[in-house]
Amino acid sequence: MNAAGNTPVLLCGNFEAQEHQAWLSALSLALPDVDWLDVTTARLRAGEVQVAVVANPPLGSLQGLPELRLVHSLWAGVDRLLADPSVPAHLPIVRMVDPAMTAAMVQTALWAVLALHRGYFVYGQHQRQARWLPHAQLRADEVSVLVLGEGVMGHAVRAALAAQGYAVTSWRRDGAPLARVLPQAQVVVNLLPLTAETRGLLNADFFAALPRGAGIVNLARGAHVVDDDLLNALQSGHLAHAVLDVFNTEPLPPAHPYWQHPRVTVLPHAAALTDERSAATVVAKNLRAFWRGQPMPHLVDRVRGY
Amino acid sequence: MNAAGNTPVLLCGNFEAQEHQAWLSALSLALPDVDWLDVTTARLRAGEVQVAVVANPPLGSLQGLPELRLVHSLWAGVDRLLADPSVPAHLPIVRMVDPAMTAAMVQTALWAVLALHRGYFVYGQHQRQARWLPHAQLRADEVSVLVLGEGVMGHAVRAALAAQGYAVTSWRRDGAPLARVLPQAQVVVNLLPLTAETRGLLNADFFAALPRGAGIVNLARGAHVVDDDLLNALQSGHLAHAVLDVFNTEPLPPAHPYWQHPRVTVLPHAAALTDERSAATVVAKNLRAFWRGQPMPHLVDRVRGY
Repeated sequence: MNAAGNTPVLLCGNFEAQEHQAWLSALSLALPDVDWLDVTTARLRAGEVQVAVVANPPLGSLQGLPELRLVHSLWAGVDRLLADPSVPAHLPIVRMVDPAMTAAMVQTALWAVLALHRGYFVYGQHQRQARWLPHAQLRADEVSVLVLGEGVMGHAVRAALAAQGYAVTSWRRDGAPLARVLPQAQVVVNLLPLTAETRGLLNADFFAALPRGAGIVNLARGAHVVDDDLLNALQSGHLAHAVLDVFNTEPLPPAHPYWQHPRVTVLPHAAALTDERSAATVVAKNLRAFWRGQPMPHLVDRVRGY
Repeated sequence: MNAAGNTPVLLCGNFEAQEHQAWLSALSLALPDVDWLDVTTARLRAGEVQVAVVANPPLGSLQGLPELRLVHSLWAGVDRLLADPSVPAHLPIVRMVDPAMTAAMVQTALWAVLALHRGYFVYGQHQRQARWLPHAQLRADEVSVLVLGEGVMGHAVRAALAAQGYAVTSWRRDGAPLARVLPQAQVVVNLLPLTAETRGLLNADFFAALPRGAGIVNLARGAHVVDDDLLNALQSGHLAHAVLDVFNTEPLPPAHPYWQHPRVTVLPHAAALTDERSAATVVAKNLRAFWRGQPMPHLVDRVRGY
């Protein structure tokens, strides 16, 4: 269907068929002069394929492409991509930074913090019992929110919460010690990248350092949380509520205690879905810049791990 | 306890004892030179009492005070106060407009619109069934929100929704015909005053004029809604969800179908609780201005009914 002279680009990911088709349509619209190849057809044009657009591709998908010079991830999180030992270490990897996705993340963070602050999850419990019981109302400036992560998402969430009047601080791994900020944090919003250093960060020690009644919002990666420690902290009443969008196993298994826990809100990894239309525009802009020899934005730092 | 020379002010409302004490403390702190009288003690100093601070007072509470020159409501809504035929028609009535309460209303409206837009109530239903099912995600600018009411609350809510990128319009009773704006409204946020003209406005005709799948957020008065019509519109699937903070009977009776309806979210008239500390400061500012002979803000227009 495509003319032979088009630029070949590998498109691969752990897509379902329908999802693959949606990406192919959006990318073809944004970059009409590209031949979008799969892992098999890319091998047939191995001498020409310089660019791969990927979304957690199956292990080894990028092997056998000696001319590969750029990998563009369709996802913002690249922890699974970096865990593939067959991805050449020298290859520059561009992370997805899409304003539409950032806006979606801000919406979810704002909704979760508003709900924790104003006790709307508690009212949800009361509703099932037909209980009419208004509770005390704090002003936003009386609620301290700690945002973990100072990347594009962390900054945007922090700004949106500050605009609503919350007392927001943010934290990055190489900044102030966590022990200094946790005792003041009534709500924690996690937007960290998943790296060897941040894996399991939200554990028993972390929860114990928070004030009694604190709430947790995890919008980053399931592996940031030690599930048993979170369940214990909720069970003891030390933590009031957790809003979880991401899990150590996804989809969350039907028998997992989070599903029926009255003080856990489960979202199906939907805090910020990638919008194919918007993301394809970002990819097109970045690849055109690459082909013109311009520098790439949002390059992954392999040492930091994100 | 108060010196005899203090200015006498009537304080009366349908308070519970603890609530009365909280108001008395906050007002005494804000206006230390006032003798706060109840209905009985005010009659004893009827010749001196020029000001009444009220919160839906029992019918007839303001009778027998010939020198009364100002009524200050502690609530923003004055529909019940105006329904008392013993409140002299010439008396100026100041409505409560408290920035802390406006901020609380904005929080609730924003939370409800975000939840309707992103389907968080649907995810709540899915959670109880342990269903992992991400659904499509619209951008905020693809969601049109209609705010009913252009008072202080309506303006603040409209601005906050616009700042999140929603396609917001607002409506007032004497503006464009409702029939022109309803077909575009995917979410309706009601912040109208309750008057003879707005009572029952959210009825079968209103709901039928909305697009299929619309959501309703009622933060104003229960009597704006015809409950059977709303239940029918939800039942037929024409409306997707309703967030209701106010009801024709409050507290909402335990057997009311709203409580257990999967597509109704019930709040216990808690969208914006009056903060005694903040409201007392507003009252103090207004009464001091009154005693200096300055004009009063937010005076009720008896003809409009708010």
